[in-house]
Amino acid sequence: MHDLRKPYLVFLGDVSLRSDAKTGFGLRDWCPGDVMGECALPTATVSLALPTMTPTEAASRGAGSIVIGVAPPGGRLPESWIPTLAEALRAGLDVVSGMHTRLQRYPLLVDAAKQGGARLIDVRHSDREWPIGTGLKRAGRRLLTVGTDCALGKKYTALAITRALTTLGAKATFRATGQTGILISGQGVPIDAVVADFVAGAAEALSPANEADHWDVVEGQGALFHPAYAGVTLGLLHGTQPDAIVLCHDPSRHTIEDHPHIPLPPLDEAIRRYLEAGRLTNPAIRCVGVAINSSTLSEAEWVRYRDQLYSQLRLPVCDPMRGGVGAIAQALLA
Amino acid sequence: MHDLRKPYLVFLGDVSLRSDAKTGFGLRDWCPGDVMGECALPTATVSLALPTMTPTEAASRGAGSIVIGVAPPGGRLPESWIPTLAEALRAGLDVVSGMHTRLQRYPLLVDAAKQGGARLIDVRHSDREWPIGTGLKRAGRRLLTVGTDCALGKKYTALAITRALTTLGAKATFRATGQTGILISGQGVPIDAVVADFVAGAAEALSPANEADHWDVVEGQGALFHPAYAGVTLGLLHGTQPDAIVLCHDPSRHTIEDHPHIPLPPLDEAIRRYLEAGRLTNPAIRCVGVAINSSTLSEAEWVRYRDQLYSQLRLPVCDPMRGGVGAIAQALLA
Repeated sequence: MHDLRKPYLVFLGDVSLRSDAKTGFGLRDWCPGDVMGECALPTATVSLALPTMTPTEAASRGAGSIVIGVAPPGGRLPESWIPTLAEALRAGLDVVSGMHTRLQRYPLLVDAAKQGGARLIDVRHSDREWPIGTGLKRAGRRLLTVGTDCALGKKYTALAITRALTTLGAKATFRATGQTGILISGQGVPIDAVVADFVAGAAEALSPANEADHWDVVEGQGALFHPAYAGVTLGLLHGTQPDAIVLCHDPSRHTIEDHPHIPLPPLDEAIRRYLEAGRLTNPAIRCVGVAINSSTLSEAEWVRYRDQLYSQLRLPVCDPMRGGVGAIAQALLA
Repeated sequence: MHDLRKPYLVFLGDVSLRSDAKTGFGLRDWCPGDVMGECALPTATVSLALPTMTPTEAASRGAGSIVIGVAPPGGRLPESWIPTLAEALRAGLDVVSGMHTRLQRYPLLVDAAKQGGARLIDVRHSDREWPIGTGLKRAGRRLLTVGTDCALGKKYTALAITRALTTLGAKATFRATGQTGILISGQGVPIDAVVADFVAGAAEALSPANEADHWDVVEGQGALFHPAYAGVTLGLLHGTQPDAIVLCHDPSRHTIEDHPHIPLPPLDEAIRRYLEAGRLTNPAIRCVGVAINSSTLSEAEWVRYRDQLYSQLRLPVCDPMRGGVGAIAQALLA
């Protein structure tokens, strides 16, 4: 892993969809002490509600890095973002990116980094060789968060369950599989950047054998129902060999984000499909709860939705941001 | 793609499982005019029944490359293979490898290549950037071969169906997804070497929009039921958006190769699972036949097995090596 310089200034580009800024929100909520402020282009319509400052201002106040806190589809840096990042580099801030495209590909950034004595850091790339998946059972217990779609709370849920388990006195470790999780926890595997053949093997390495009563809480990626990323999801599921899954869902979504021709499955069907696939490497896999991103629902709507879903599924239904995931953690340890 | 120098000498290392030598068998059977002979270590127990010769002999007879015709689990070059490959390089043969590990990682080979003025060529690596999968329908028709396991005939079946369609007067193109297929056809995408996030997008690019009555016959990879490779299989399935699948199976196998703790699914269940997953990007997907690798069955056993399977599935049941796949090609065009 890279040695990141904190605190961070979070850069939001020209973001107009909250779900595209999940990296920024994740940093704000999970390591607030490491985030000094935010910075965006004038066309951006999403804010983290942190102090806004230019890269130069942040550098003068002691920031160490500007972190790209927004994930554009395709993972390529828009032309319009370059000047702000170049300003940051010239002011001495490292640029930290979780995008597929390496920062070294942008000559203007390479030049600016030299001028400012700063670094270009791609947390999504590991360049490490991973083993092939074995499918063999290993000691310790594992929970994987899975979803009906991308970007609807799988990382938040995993972080919240890790905290809830620790609060209940259990041994638990958050295992990061994406750039934000890695930024928060300081370690992990950027699973969707691993060469396809090695995804399950990398997932096995991410949650190695451990004490029998220790829980690895693994951040899920993608969705089995996503036309671009389902393969990543399946490899992570098979390599994690979870004893337990938690299904994450956003009730305001009815189709896969950015793919309006692909409907989301009903939740019971989604659970059935994840368990069917997961049984390959852990026949004892079970679903221990549903985590809902209810941010679009009023309190009354949420209570009604939650109770209806509980009646249908007979599983704990939680929103990590609204009441927490204590019920899921308790069900897990019961 | 690389510019490969033919004819080939096929190197078999110390192979003891026929299925590990699928690259060698594929070259022998599908481009025999390009294969001069074979070469192996004394401990090898599998032969392609081609003329045996040393690399030096092959070079003196005009060979252009020594091709590694065997795929060890994990894709790493055993120490004991190095001297033969170094001899080939010093004799002026290019070494062509389909393994994950790059030939440049072996200093002895790098030195020998310099001495012989020969090249180290990794056909599995592409280093090209691929787009993210879109899931959008495109013109033309596609068939994907899928399997109950790895290494049981998906490439052979795709090549045979391409030939059978062409013989019937249909427009058809074989689309290679693995090193052997790429060696045979001279083009393709080494799909399991693509970064996981881009597998579906690379599969879309491999079988682009085409004439409405043109068939791309895509070589499948892995299996949905394989603990290490299922993610690759799913991404390829989603990106290919096949109108038709053909399930490939070897009746002598009852567990995943090298994973004796993981049983193969029944064939009707395997078909159901592939169709269920494939409907995400092509709701009209159907299974048009089953291709059996019946090499372990006597003629009487094969006839009985084939007829029983037909009664159960009501689909054409063929062995590409035993009677051909004409029935599947006809069903496809019917």
